[in-house]
Amino acid sequence: MKTDVEIAQETQMVHIREIAAQLDLTEDDLELYGKYKAKITIDTWHKLKNKKNGKLILVTAINPTPAGEGKTTMSIGLGDALHSLGKKTALALREPSLGPCFGIKGGAAGGGYAQVVPMEDINLHFTGDFHALTSAHNLLAAVLDNHLQQGNALDIDVRTITWRRVVDLNDRALRNIICGLGGKAHGVPRETGFDITVASELMAILCLSDNLQDAKKRIGKIVVAYNHAGEPVRADDLNVTGALALLLKDAIKPNLVQSLEKTPAFIHGGPFANIAHGCNSILATKYALKLADYVVTEAGFGADLGAEKFINIKCRAAGLKPDAVVVVATIRALKMHGGLAKQELAKPDLAALEAGLANLSKHVENIKNFGLPAIVAINRFPADTEAEIHLLENACQKLGVEFSLSTAFTDGSKGSADLAQKVIRAADTSSTLHFTYTDEMSTKEKIAAIAKKIYGADGVNYTPAADKAIAQMEKMGFARLPVCMAKTQYSLSDDMHKLGRPTGFKITVKEIRLSAGAGFIVALTGNILTMPGLPKKPAAENMDIDVNGKITGLF
Amino acid sequence: MKTDVEIAQETQMVHIREIAAQLDLTEDDLELYGKYKAKITIDTWHKLKNKKNGKLILVTAINPTPAGEGKTTMSIGLGDALHSLGKKTALALREPSLGPCFGIKGGAAGGGYAQVVPMEDINLHFTGDFHALTSAHNLLAAVLDNHLQQGNALDIDVRTITWRRVVDLNDRALRNIICGLGGKAHGVPRETGFDITVASELMAILCLSDNLQDAKKRIGKIVVAYNHAGEPVRADDLNVTGALALLLKDAIKPNLVQSLEKTPAFIHGGPFANIAHGCNSILATKYALKLADYVVTEAGFGADLGAEKFINIKCRAAGLKPDAVVVVATIRALKMHGGLAKQELAKPDLAALEAGLANLSKHVENIKNFGLPAIVAINRFPADTEAEIHLLENACQKLGVEFSLSTAFTDGSKGSADLAQKVIRAADTSSTLHFTYTDEMSTKEKIAAIAKKIYGADGVNYTPAADKAIAQMEKMGFARLPVCMAKTQYSLSDDMHKLGRPTGFKITVKEIRLSAGAGFIVALTGNILTMPGLPKKPAAENMDIDVNGKITGLF
Repeated sequence: MKTDVEIAQETQMVHIREIAAQLDLTEDDLELYGKYKAKITIDTWHKLKNKKNGKLILVTAINPTPAGEGKTTMSIGLGDALHSLGKKTALALREPSLGPCFGIKGGAAGGGYAQVVPMEDINLHFTGDFHALTSAHNLLAAVLDNHLQQGNALDIDVRTITWRRVVDLNDRALRNIICGLGGKAHGVPRETGFDITVASELMAILCLSDNLQDAKKRIGKIVVAYNHAGEPVRADDLNVTGALALLLKDAIKPNLVQSLEKTPAFIHGGPFANIAHGCNSILATKYALKLADYVVTEAGFGADLGAEKFINIKCRAAGLKPDAVVVVATIRALKMHGGLAKQELAKPDLAALEAGLANLSKHVENIKNFGLPAIVAINRFPADTEAEIHLLENACQKLGVEFSLSTAFTDGSKGSADLAQKVIRAADTSSTLHFTYTDEMSTKEKIAAIAKKIYGADGVNYTPAADKAIAQMEKMGFARLPVCMAKTQYSLSDDMHKLGRPTGFKITVKEIRLSAGAGFIVALTGNILTMPGLPKKPAAENMDIDVNGKITGLF
Repeated sequence: MKTDVEIAQETQMVHIREIAAQLDLTEDDLELYGKYKAKITIDTWHKLKNKKNGKLILVTAINPTPAGEGKTTMSIGLGDALHSLGKKTALALREPSLGPCFGIKGGAAGGGYAQVVPMEDINLHFTGDFHALTSAHNLLAAVLDNHLQQGNALDIDVRTITWRRVVDLNDRALRNIICGLGGKAHGVPRETGFDITVASELMAILCLSDNLQDAKKRIGKIVVAYNHAGEPVRADDLNVTGALALLLKDAIKPNLVQSLEKTPAFIHGGPFANIAHGCNSILATKYALKLADYVVTEAGFGADLGAEKFINIKCRAAGLKPDAVVVVATIRALKMHGGLAKQELAKPDLAALEAGLANLSKHVENIKNFGLPAIVAINRFPADTEAEIHLLENACQKLGVEFSLSTAFTDGSKGSADLAQKVIRAADTSSTLHFTYTDEMSTKEKIAAIAKKIYGADGVNYTPAADKAIAQMEKMGFARLPVCMAKTQYSLSDDMHKLGRPTGFKITVKEIRLSAGAGFIVALTGNILTMPGLPKKPAAENMDIDVNGKITGLF
């Protein structure tokens, strides 16, 4: 089969004006970025805001495994299938991060015959949103260090500075640095480091804001450090909230592109799914819902992190509700959850599949507990046997959940036609969303609710540091904030080695961080890396552009 | 008077299609970035390359002073004046850097009634060129550190790594850092630091390349470190030349915008004028020359740095020749060169002006020695007296150089009509360009030629380190490269306090750096900061964007 970039390059894209026209948008609604990318203006929102919303379809997955589930590919395939059935459809997806693209991944705009294009641009600089976030984030850091240098009028305790710097690359050597070296003229020496841009609180703010003024308010509330009296120092105290908002004036506008099958696709925002909430922007989702009858969106990692936060953080903030939830799985991955090693996955193994199903069933239960209709979508691989498929279908019947096989990767929309039909039916049923916790619950009650109801844990342990931090946060008045769990994506527990459906475990909250601007408290279980590293042979080594502008090595 | 951003906002811009049409470009030649910015496609070049070139007008200046000379404003005013005389005109200017915009400057897109617009975008992210350069630069750094982490197969001596990281901000705390801390999993600890993006060798490469393939060749040659045997390690050795070129695929395309008076303006590239050559891109200049009859371009700092490098580096590399050179000065600045303090400048002082004229006359002599016709253009300030102007005019007559008063800042094109007429006349005279040195001269001979002919120095001293480095460079085969002087911009000498026209001095070369990709050897006299700092009250504190999208604080 052809590579992703080859398939993408063979596609005849249409001018983004034509894609916009499918959604009844005119050129006045667009800020073009070349012929195939556009941002939607803010004025457009004012025309749209009183329109009825379309149906919102959330695509989530089992706990990811090295076998790969293809959630983005499946989302795009589903969007294309709805589109080919004549439904007015839009995708609402996350922007890929530049860093991982040069590391192992090599690209993140779907795959095979279910991609968004121009994939080269989407995977690289796109419309510059992440660069704007990087600049704004680092301006705040530079102003903070300049404040120390210029006399530290705010009496900042340099040991308490929480605002690091960011770069949109996998650069492990920047995880821990000492800055300000070289003598008096060159700053105040201190320990700090860099995270990847998607881990920036500004990214979470961009994705949770209703508009630029809302973003500005949130930016002003960011806590960057504490003074010697232990009181929070905010971006507002450094007087650069306006400058930061100014840097984000275009980044906040949703981006429109197309799928290989010309389905309109909003690609906007992409916060980490561990220390942040892992969903595309509220603004893009809202635009899409006003403009299309079916909006297919996606949440990061498995449903225990992605869907949980989509509902408890994003839906809560935006007043949204999914009309149906698709849980993506592969037979290969379920067999890994059932104990099979990665190199054994090509072999049929009904026992492993049966055992691994437990992971899927827990996620399906969780979706039902949210009050939402679920559909299991299997991303079919060539080695999947009829017996395995049959076993899976029976299991779904027993679980009382719809089941659909998809070959979107190889067949595009045709490969997801059945899934689309089932999604349409599910989205027509009425449902009532139940959050996992209420605003009024204490931080620990919220964490306990997630751990027990979503993860299936027996309870939660706290390190003394976490205990102390929670008490501090509540004292500072942040008790009502939702909790953003940072946990391994590979297991329902906080131990990445416990696959399937672990029981009899407690999770341990080791650290608490405050995202006062984004509006959540982050509870970290285990060591969450906020700056990835490059592998021994980075994907960057395969990339090239030739004399005719032909690009290779992105996939 | 209104602020720059107010004037800019009151202007009714026309769609960039209309600006392009003035140059006989159609929408097919454009990649739109919104309605008022575009990149010109590479295919357009193939249509243009055999056309005859227009006239190239270089705008340079006396040594800058804190009084300000307004070189960019004067360039735009001249472009507008040529345009209003019915000449097919294009500006070819540098892109402003984001960092200084938040520091003291607050913007760099001209001023008053001589600006390029949309100034908010040009001053902020523009079309993302600098962000692309930042990403490419830092990818190379990340891959280099990853190479160390993964076993250091190239046997790189970590103490010799010359490739730092960059950020497009004024962030002094990043000048000197230790990275790779935190233990075995987090990289190899070493000293390094960040420069501002405009100081990146990639910026110089972008501006000196004929096309992306040329840029790729140059990127591959960048020397990032040395191995333990003392041999250079290049970007090519790290296998990411293709990925870096890919990241620059759009950045290399020239950007088109408009002046307040609708003159087409190419704004592309912006290397430092000390450790790099300080001119906009060769590509943009070449496009402009094919498309317009008059192209007004600008070089950084004073003529001793900017014009010298424009001619000896840019013109040499691109086969270009200016048809006329405008030397910008203000009476205020000349009085500072004559010994007057900054707070005294509003007072008429003929003696100080007379003394300060020596600075202007040296630059005029230099332009004549290049074999080029010069015009002195005075950026007129309200406090300038008739007597002072008269003195200046007489002095120019004695120097045998054309003289013109301009009020572009307050009057736009009307304020530079006389200058435009004189420029047209000068550009019609035939002239032969003389370089300051030949390729064949040794590095020290080249430096001596610049020091003596351009600066008026008696000679050059070298520190032992510089001596050793020059010997090394010549041994490695870089003797034919031109020399890029890094010197204070404030004086013709290497001592910033020696204003006017110093004599009886030698310059001291303290350090030599190699820009093997850009294709020059950098000779540093004195400490050149490649990462600016923020002032006590950064310009960022005044910036804001309100609920209607109205921007304040950029100027």
